[in-house]
Amino acid sequence: MTTNQKPFKRILLTGAAGGLGRILRERIKPWAEIVRLSDISDMGAAQAGEEVVQCDLSDKAAVHALMKDVDVVLHFGGISTENNFEAIMRANIQGTYNIYEAVHQAGVKRVVFASSNHAVGFYKTTDYIDANSPRRPDGMYGISKCFGEDLSRYYYDRFGIETVCLRIGSSFPEPINKRMLVTYFSYDDLVEMLRCCLFTPRVGHTIAFGMSDNPASWWDNRYASHLGYQAKDSSTQFAHKFPDNGDYPEKDDITTIYQGGGFLLTGPQYI
Amino acid sequence: MTTNQKPFKRILLTGAAGGLGRILRERIKPWAEIVRLSDISDMGAAQAGEEVVQCDLSDKAAVHALMKDVDVVLHFGGISTENNFEAIMRANIQGTYNIYEAVHQAGVKRVVFASSNHAVGFYKTTDYIDANSPRRPDGMYGISKCFGEDLSRYYYDRFGIETVCLRIGSSFPEPINKRMLVTYFSYDDLVEMLRCCLFTPRVGHTIAFGMSDNPASWWDNRYASHLGYQAKDSSTQFAHKFPDNGDYPEKDDITTIYQGGGFLLTGPQYI
Amino acid sequence: MTTNQKPFKRILLTGAAGGLGRILRERIKPWAEIVRLSDISDMGAAQAGEEVVQCDLSDKAAVHALMKDVDVVLHFGGISTENNFEAIMRANIQGTYNIYEAVHQAGVKRVVFASSNHAVGFYKTTDYIDANSPRRPDGMYGISKCFGEDLSRYYYDRFGIETVCLRIGSSFPEPINKRMLVTYFSYDDLVEMLRCCLFTPRVGHTIAFGMSDNPASWWDNRYASHLGYQAKDSSTQFAHKFPDNGDYPEKDDITTIYQGGGFLLTGPQYI
Amino acid sequence: MTTNQKPFKRILLTGAAGGLGRILRERIKPWAEIVRLSDISDMGAAQAGEEVVQCDLSDKAAVHALMKDVDVVLHFGGISTENNFEAIMRANIQGTYNIYEAVHQAGVKRVVFASSNHAVGFYKTTDYIDANSPRRPDGMYGISKCFGEDLSRYYYDRFGIETVCLRIGSSFPEPINKRMLVTYFSYDDLVEMLRCCLFTPRVGHTIAFGMSDNPASWWDNRYASHLGYQAKDSSTQFAHKFPDNGDYPEKDDITTIYQGGGFLLTGPQYI
Amino acid sequence: MTTNQKPFKRILLTGAAGGLGRILRERIKPWAEIVRLSDISDMGAAQAGEEVVQCDLSDKAAVHALMKDVDVVLHFGGISTENNFEAIMRANIQGTYNIYEAVHQAGVKRVVFASSNHAVGFYKTTDYIDANSPRRPDGMYGISKCFGEDLSRYYYDRFGIETVCLRIGSSFPEPINKRMLVTYFSYDDLVEMLRCCLFTPRVGHTIAFGMSDNPASWWDNRYASHLGYQAKDSSTQFAHKFPDNGDYPEKDDITTIYQGGGFLLTGPQYI
Amino acid sequence: MTTNQKPFKRILLTGAAGGLGRILRERIKPWAEIVRLSDISDMGAAQAGEEVVQCDLSDKAAVHALMKDVDVVLHFGGISTENNFEAIMRANIQGTYNIYEAVHQAGVKRVVFASSNHAVGFYKTTDYIDANSPRRPDGMYGISKCFGEDLSRYYYDRFGIETVCLRIGSSFPEPINKRMLVTYFSYDDLVEMLRCCLFTPRVGHTIAFGMSDNPASWWDNRYASHLGYQAKDSSTQFAHKFPDNGDYPEKDDITTIYQGGGFLLTGPQYI
Repeated sequence: MTTNQKPFKRILLTGAAGGLGRILRERIKPWAEIVRLSDISDMGAAQAGEEVVQCDLSDKAAVHALMKDVDVVLHFGGISTENNFEAIMRANIQGTYNIYEAVHQAGVKRVVFASSNHAVGFYKTTDYIDANSPRRPDGMYGISKCFGEDLSRYYYDRFGIETVCLRIGSSFPEPINKRMLVTYFSYDDLVEMLRCCLFTPRVGHTIAFGMSDNPASWWDNRYASHLGYQAKDSSTQFAHKFPDNGDYPEKDDITTIYQGGGFLLTGPQYI
Repeated sequence: MTTNQKPFKRILLTGAAGGLGRILRERIKPWAEIVRLSDISDMGAAQAGEEVVQCDLSDKAAVHALMKDVDVVLHFGGISTENNFEAIMRANIQGTYNIYEAVHQAGVKRVVFASSNHAVGFYKTTDYIDANSPRRPDGMYGISKCFGEDLSRYYYDRFGIETVCLRIGSSFPEPINKRMLVTYFSYDDLVEMLRCCLFTPRVGHTIAFGMSDNPASWWDNRYASHLGYQAKDSSTQFAHKFPDNGDYPEKDDITTIYQGGGFLLTGPQYI
Repeated sequence: MTTNQKPFKRILLTGAAGGLGRILRERIKPWAEIVRLSDISDMGAAQAGEEVVQCDLSDKAAVHALMKDVDVVLHFGGISTENNFEAIMRANIQGTYNIYEAVHQAGVKRVVFASSNHAVGFYKTTDYIDANSPRRPDGMYGISKCFGEDLSRYYYDRFGIETVCLRIGSSFPEPINKRMLVTYFSYDDLVEMLRCCLFTPRVGHTIAFGMSDNPASWWDNRYASHLGYQAKDSSTQFAHKFPDNGDYPEKDDITTIYQGGGFLLTGPQYI
Repeated sequence: MTTNQKPFKRILLTGAAGGLGRILRERIKPWAEIVRLSDISDMGAAQAGEEVVQCDLSDKAAVHALMKDVDVVLHFGGISTENNFEAIMRANIQGTYNIYEAVHQAGVKRVVFASSNHAVGFYKTTDYIDANSPRRPDGMYGISKCFGEDLSRYYYDRFGIETVCLRIGSSFPEPINKRMLVTYFSYDDLVEMLRCCLFTPRVGHTIAFGMSDNPASWWDNRYASHLGYQAKDSSTQFAHKFPDNGDYPEKDDITTIYQGGGFLLTGPQYI
Repeated sequence: MTTNQKPFKRILLTGAAGGLGRILRERIKPWAEIVRLSDISDMGAAQAGEEVVQCDLSDKAAVHALMKDVDVVLHFGGISTENNFEAIMRANIQGTYNIYEAVHQAGVKRVVFASSNHAVGFYKTTDYIDANSPRRPDGMYGISKCFGEDLSRYYYDRFGIETVCLRIGSSFPEPINKRMLVTYFSYDDLVEMLRCCLFTPRVGHTIAFGMSDNPASWWDNRYASHLGYQAKDSSTQFAHKFPDNGDYPEKDDITTIYQGGGFLLTGPQYI
Repeated sequence: MTTNQKPFKRILLTGAAGGLGRILRERIKPWAEIVRLSDISDMGAAQAGEEVVQCDLSDKAAVHALMKDVDVVLHFGGISTENNFEAIMRANIQGTYNIYEAVHQAGVKRVVFASSNHAVGFYKTTDYIDANSPRRPDGMYGISKCFGEDLSRYYYDRFGIETVCLRIGSSFPEPINKRMLVTYFSYDDLVEMLRCCLFTPRVGHTIAFGMSDNPASWWDNRYASHLGYQAKDSSTQFAHKFPDNGDYPEKDDITTIYQGGGFLLTGPQYI
């Protein structure tokens, strides 16, 4: 491969119409001749270097077709907030199974799976955990992310398909509450992390936390050290928006006791 | 409660027509005035002290009806071997979700969930693991058991519903191959373990390995020490059926490299 | 030393009028020519091979006198239940300091310090801890035991004075509630443990849990493995007195959530 | 709360006449409308925004009065060097108990407790420890700090009162010997650490090491990661005052073998 | 294979004239049609089912010849006490290298390597270690055993040759001092351990401690749990020969401070 | 010692004609009045402040002569790539033994031993290890480095001779392949690390990884935190020479699976 070429011939990005999908659509173009975009929603017209394929991930045949000639997959598709279980099961459980079985059949070598901090949201905000800490999902959404992590582990152990499960923190333009000063993951850092996930020669099956270089942290990325990810951004620049105050939360306020924050207040019975 | 009474008014046993379900049907009667039996298959007529309710666990309404007036649940239902993903998803993922949501709605306090060693079957036969070791499922069946463990963890963290996830080894009349000398879990020991799971005052969310007192072991039950389980049986009495020999397995024989054994050879693409 | 002689010339037993002190007074005679008994309360007349010295451990001069010609100390003195802080400070903090400073001045080589499971009583009844687990005292009494463990550690690190801190479970004739099925420590096992503490050639500074071979346990004695203690008794023989029942404790009943049991309900403000 | 207001109405600073107390008196004013200063020694006249209350912490009634209308406490009072045990017991053990019982009675929600590296001074200078490492106090002073850590743990576990135990290294204008190149904690960094301790929404019970960003370190602050403390200073700027030399300490020089340094040479019998 | 046959065609036992070699010569016959015996010393005439080959293990060609048609190796050869380094290097380092290179060339699948507790003899007698604890050899002999453990690890990682490194305690007819009450490894238990090492289907590279079921222990065999070794003997029956006494060793007596015992007093400069 | 003097009177540098030896010869002059250079190869003429002594490290008498009047040793001598075992044994095993025995006889207090990442080269490139991780040598060279680490541990435990075992990564002018982006150790950082090793007041027996501040890392230097080493360089500046590409290595390419890289392909049978 000469340096004139882009590294990959074709990247598949699922969830391309979602919040992060729209960001990534712009940012990952340098990595592939063609970016194939997929979502259940409308993604607009294909731009240069793009292929647009509307697809319900719970449709197995469609997903297998989607995988044709793909080198690597950024699997950001599915439901990305708490929802009723059946919807999550269809989109995130059936859907992720379809992705992996298609990956396996198509001979794709590597996947980045958009997991979530909500796979471990029931740790306390005074805990400090790493990728080997037992999971503590904080809802149906988090449970579906645990499923994806287990599923991808299986496909690695059994078939050698590499995956980085990226437990994304809060990837937004900026933190919108105090909690996000801890979990903030800037778009630039997200893109840099994805670059590391795709271009590290070997990643095996890695669970990494997606966060910027924020002052406070609940997550130790030691088991992702081989990725070489180095955050450039920090939530510090936004700290002034949430000035210090002495209004401590109530002792039984679970949204501040546990890392999952507001997700804790949602649950299967409320939806 | 006087000692004349049985401890529970009503135990629900799912999977009552299955291999272990048929054993337990006979053995758990002393623990409840009424044992409600459930399975997707025919269970024959109700005996004294029994209620028989045929039920597909993927049918949410039926499961909610099943839970009425239940004190505790022994959830042995679902598919208990490797199968295609969709069947496992319906029976073990949707089915177990239905059980827990019904448990939650009905105010049931405790569940024993029949998990499996196949949730960690991709550890090596030279590894020694405990309940906190990251999961390594060895197939779709094992992945569905991981799901059940995560789901029950959520219901405990969020709602205080206690569960013992019992990673059952090989619960058969006797070991039928060398691997089972390690994983053997006699029926008597299974029943004693269930007794511990049901009658320990608090179990929180516990992951326990179901095994007899076999000479070799891959599993450390230290995090289930509070259950007070003491195995009475051992595979030693059956060891003579598998005499020592020098026929070492091939280096790449994954059924002896990994704890999951023959399950390793099955997989989504083979079914 | 010939085998006709007793191993020690003089053992000092503090707290000799207490519940365990009275038991030990009878049982440790084979180990020393003279057993010096001390308590703040009346101990009756000295028997053959005994010296009886009534003594308030908070009286430094008295304690130094007490230590004269002593080989080893079994420090069971002080307050052994929850009490107001000032009383505990005087008896257990000042008192234990006096003991150690006297031990140091007198050149005594080894102490067995009667610590307590209440030094870690705020672990949950579903936790499994060992001697290196951070302390979680459940009251002023437990805090005073933590103090004694730290103090004795200092005297070992600085002066080489050996101590076994024995975190005694429930050393009574028999368990009187369900909790004690876990914490039971028979008198015979207590005596055997003390024998190990006194006669192991080196003990350094060891923290050991005092318990019989009960089916359920919260405590891993791995860091006391060099003591060679092997329990002969078990709470199993008393289990029938607390029959299995399905009356689960309330979710917020701290006496069953935490290992400390009923001690949790006492506290500085209640006394 | 608008940003015009100060975060707290009233902070209590004990030990206000001590070395660090005098520094903090100047620095913490932005955090509270009123800083209540307390010490056993004379503190001079109250400045604007100050209340000055001379108080012996071993006087329970005085301490309870001191706590009236206090939001949070910075407990820097007591004896801060090695001393005879009785003095330390009165000031640091009885005194800290009085503080916490008053905190509890007054409904104060959070305390920063000035603990010390001397709670673990008997680790070696080649060890690397964290907040969960078993304690190794290096003298009576260190033992009293262990007591405070245990006591505050109890008040958190039992009553939910939050504490950060800050194991302060060497908080001086600059390092005055080689050891302090490792333990240096600049005043600016101390103040920043206190800011984190007071304004992190939840701290539970945290043990943090107080040190600047020095090149060498014996302490891993991983379990304080949620505080968001980031040191701005380093001992590097002072390193030239202690030039490299080949004069290795003697093998048995305990002041260089153990982290506690010169404190190791003091002890109960020497004072 | 029918049960009439012996499991192996040919076992090679090195060190057959040594203390343990002579014991094993008698005991391992049931496991192989032919036991090939090797030693640098005279072994007497071959008995039925034996081949006797005198061999200096530092002679590479001789060792390669020795390995012809061998199924498995019990490598007990070399120097088994402290000695000068050059002798140990020749016998234990060059010798063990020759064994492994011959094993590799000959396609032998499994080796039991007689390692020693002296590979970790510089742990304290109050420590409790396992196979993953960093090594602490107590002399040149111990260092040569560390070498063998590293070498065999390499041959496993690189070529898949399985080895059990058996850190033999004190394998003698009975304990001859107090230390051996901890380290005793009866001949029967040694033979049972070897049986486990040879007939467990997979052993990978395992480090196991060779000890009977003694009351006190310094070694945790958890990482050898897959071997299924269960000791039948205990040093308890010999305890009466070393009656309890209060003669504590001197504080600086390294033979009781460290696990290696008397080996600590030997060293390169003393020989 | 006044600041005009150099810290040491005489440093011995072995391997002075080797790749790193030639670099160090220039760089360590500020640390000693005299640098004694040793190698088996020609080193050219002695410069000012140098002594040049050609010496085969396997010659015990020569090594003992070499050690006369030496303060500290930088032991970089021996074979530094994979080679046949006998050559490595003579140079690295016998040679390093000779060094340490001479160090012991001569009363030298401290050694820096040039160990290698190849002592742990059989960890995977997705592993993250520290100094306590069990060794996984990747060849005869790596095994000889394990030997040196064990030997130096013994000399520390038994005689108090301090050693830093420096597991050098890739110390070259710049990385020459992708692997070296992880293992790069600039000459400046090597010199700074050696400065830390020599001038930290106590180092005991430390195992440190020699690497620059590279983005990706396989090694956690936490147990060398007391050294105060801070890398100034990073491989980042060279990353553009190895542009991102999607050419993933084959699944069975052991040079990318394991940390040892190309060393994995060499082995005893190939040389």
